[in-house]
Amino acid sequence: MPKRNAFYAQSGGVTATINASAAGVIEAARRHRATIGKVYAGRNGIIGALTEDLIDTSKEPVASIRALKHTPAGAFGSCRYKLKGLEESRAQYERLIEVFRAHDIGYFFYNGGNDSADTCLKVSQIADKLGYPLQAIHVPKTVDNDLAVTDNCPGFGSVAKYVATSMREAAFDVASMAKTSTKIFVLEVMGRHAGWITAAVGMAEDERTPIPLVLLFPEIPFDESTFVARVDALTKANGYCCIGVSEGLSNAEGKLLADAGTRDAFGHAQLGGVGPLIARIVNERLKVKYHWAVADYLQRSARHLASKTDVEQSYAVGRAAVEYAIAGKNAVMPAITRVSDRPYRWKITEAPLSKVANVEKKLPRDFIAKDGYGITAKARAYLSPLMKGEAPPPFKDGLPQYVRLRNVPVAKKLATEFKP
Amino acid sequence: MPKRNAFYAQSGGVTATINASAAGVIEAARRHRATIGKVYAGRNGIIGALTEDLIDTSKEPVASIRALKHTPAGAFGSCRYKLKGLEESRAQYERLIEVFRAHDIGYFFYNGGNDSADTCLKVSQIADKLGYPLQAIHVPKTVDNDLAVTDNCPGFGSVAKYVATSMREAAFDVASMAKTSTKIFVLEVMGRHAGWITAAVGMAEDERTPIPLVLLFPEIPFDESTFVARVDALTKANGYCCIGVSEGLSNAEGKLLADAGTRDAFGHAQLGGVGPLIARIVNERLKVKYHWAVADYLQRSARHLASKTDVEQSYAVGRAAVEYAIAGKNAVMPAITRVSDRPYRWKITEAPLSKVANVEKKLPRDFIAKDGYGITAKARAYLSPLMKGEAPPPFKDGLPQYVRLRNVPVAKKLATEFKP
Repeated sequence: MPKRNAFYAQSGGVTATINASAAGVIEAARRHRATIGKVYAGRNGIIGALTEDLIDTSKEPVASIRALKHTPAGAFGSCRYKLKGLEESRAQYERLIEVFRAHDIGYFFYNGGNDSADTCLKVSQIADKLGYPLQAIHVPKTVDNDLAVTDNCPGFGSVAKYVATSMREAAFDVASMAKTSTKIFVLEVMGRHAGWITAAVGMAEDERTPIPLVLLFPEIPFDESTFVARVDALTKANGYCCIGVSEGLSNAEGKLLADAGTRDAFGHAQLGGVGPLIARIVNERLKVKYHWAVADYLQRSARHLASKTDVEQSYAVGRAAVEYAIAGKNAVMPAITRVSDRPYRWKITEAPLSKVANVEKKLPRDFIAKDGYGITAKARAYLSPLMKGEAPPPFKDGLPQYVRLRNVPVAKKLATEFKP
Repeated sequence: MPKRNAFYAQSGGVTATINASAAGVIEAARRHRATIGKVYAGRNGIIGALTEDLIDTSKEPVASIRALKHTPAGAFGSCRYKLKGLEESRAQYERLIEVFRAHDIGYFFYNGGNDSADTCLKVSQIADKLGYPLQAIHVPKTVDNDLAVTDNCPGFGSVAKYVATSMREAAFDVASMAKTSTKIFVLEVMGRHAGWITAAVGMAEDERTPIPLVLLFPEIPFDESTFVARVDALTKANGYCCIGVSEGLSNAEGKLLADAGTRDAFGHAQLGGVGPLIARIVNERLKVKYHWAVADYLQRSARHLASKTDVEQSYAVGRAAVEYAIAGKNAVMPAITRVSDRPYRWKITEAPLSKVANVEKKLPRDFIAKDGYGITAKARAYLSPLMKGEAPPPFKDGLPQYVRLRNVPVAKKLATEFKP
């Protein structure tokens, strides 16, 4: 096998552990110097490839690459930039190959979600069409946990741990205050189309720590009357009630609640924020004091509370991607396969990209309680191991120490500029 | 000294470490069994005393009291209930003494902020007036860090650590996305009148981790033009900009930017929502994509990320309160005195309640940068040690394990009911 360079890019919304996958790719590639020359990263994802803005990761010291394992977000920059169909976006795809050819890229590692899996597959196809030898491997990542084939997605376990911990802690707070003050607490979480993160909020409570908790899934159309009745009953029985709501909560017509109403909590025009909206509805109907929180980026960047399982899996899929490349594979993704629940055991298996690209894995209906407001034992058995273990970053003077890479550019070789 | 019982209550908004103070009081009292009989806790704070709803803490096992050190919020329930002047609220004060007399309470430990220090002082005064022997000791607590005399307030250091860590993590996220997506991130934090928590957001960035950061303090009247210009300049220079805003941000007329209109039992406005408002202003003026987070209760209940310094000080003031009681003191508060910055050394000293009650310690102007949008080296030297050290709770199956007490009631002795 002739020695060729590799390209790695981060795509879409970042996570607390996507850099652990980057470390997996780069460290594994460094162990295969006979086959893989340099790993070039795209600055700001695929945009970096299109504009020939490449980062030479070989300029980073070993310690910096190691530190990526405990550093949240995308160290090389990510982007929201979707390449469309091969014919529609032909110029972009051809430009990619042109850049890859100029830098002798033989391996394409694309770290992202659904859209990225599709892009990765198309890059593999166009290379083949153009007779350019390239192995395209997708490295899975998404807090939304909605990728097909893989049992779970790197990045999700840490968000799950964060939202469950945060709701548990806030519930202790509200329980303390409920007698004379706040009785309702609403936490809005991410997951626009699939309720995986909402389900994880349900892990805040268990037999040892019961919490009166109502979950509002994007999969279950919002019904104000039954919801308010449920909150009312729980508040009367327990003195307080906690609510976890997905940003993607929709009404029976499939319209997002955050876009549907004219009112929001403060009478302002659309700010987004279904959390404050739900709090306002409860307040208007039940006349009780409320608080609400919107964790937003905090939930997906909270590396200080990452799941150890998630960190290990994120690293493992990065390393496996390189091993697949070395083994000559193309248009595949390392998937996580669950071997057993208790004890939790998992392994990496090969998934063809054609089965992953553009498929959205929804939360199964039997993970949601019959009444639509909670999770089932099946959901708990699935979620629990993904949140397991702590892997805190190093702290200094009370704060987590995250690495910033030098991100040294690779000298451009092409005369042409490209506007993506 | 005749052996008498103690009363302990938690007051006002709870914190991640107020239960550590409870542990300090109860464990110290257990070491002084010759002087202090039982520690009775008020269920839901002072309401529990008024309604003779007392909790017998002697029924709690040693391990449960020890676990309070790592459990957030108020284990006995807190309340927002302000006793007014002695003449205005005479019936309440007399009822307190009646309950104390019935249960032979000789020590009154009140764990709270400004308002509670005032109540504690008045309880001491009325007992004196009525000839009832009582020692009233205030145990300081408030995330707002606005108590006088003490160098800092138990509960604040942990919030400071949480908001600085959260902003640092979110900044890494936004930096990754800024090329094609979110360029502005707004984090709304607590601190109604004093900008201590807002200042702590500033600790997210330092020489090793520079972040384009703008802080909006409650002490500095909001000026839209200079603020937007600052954000614009930082975004142009860095590609993105982070904003930390106090819930108490006001305009030049002293009007809160986000006044929801509802008021709590203390007559304070219920705030929340200035974060989305600021994000909208930036979006309207600069036409850039934004995200915002409102941490709300998450910031003050985040025991998983508590400052070790804070936990130790919270415990120490509880223990010191008991020692003051044993020493015969009355109408005092154990205050934290800073001995040195580097290395950070502190000790507990005695503060007369008359100097603490109803005094609000604002953030000094020289802690805020001249332009009003950042913090000074002086602020950093003050804040840094308070956030130092980690003291994580035990985790099981990926989640923090917090204790719930049995909270066994004390048999009532009074025939009369009391509606507080």
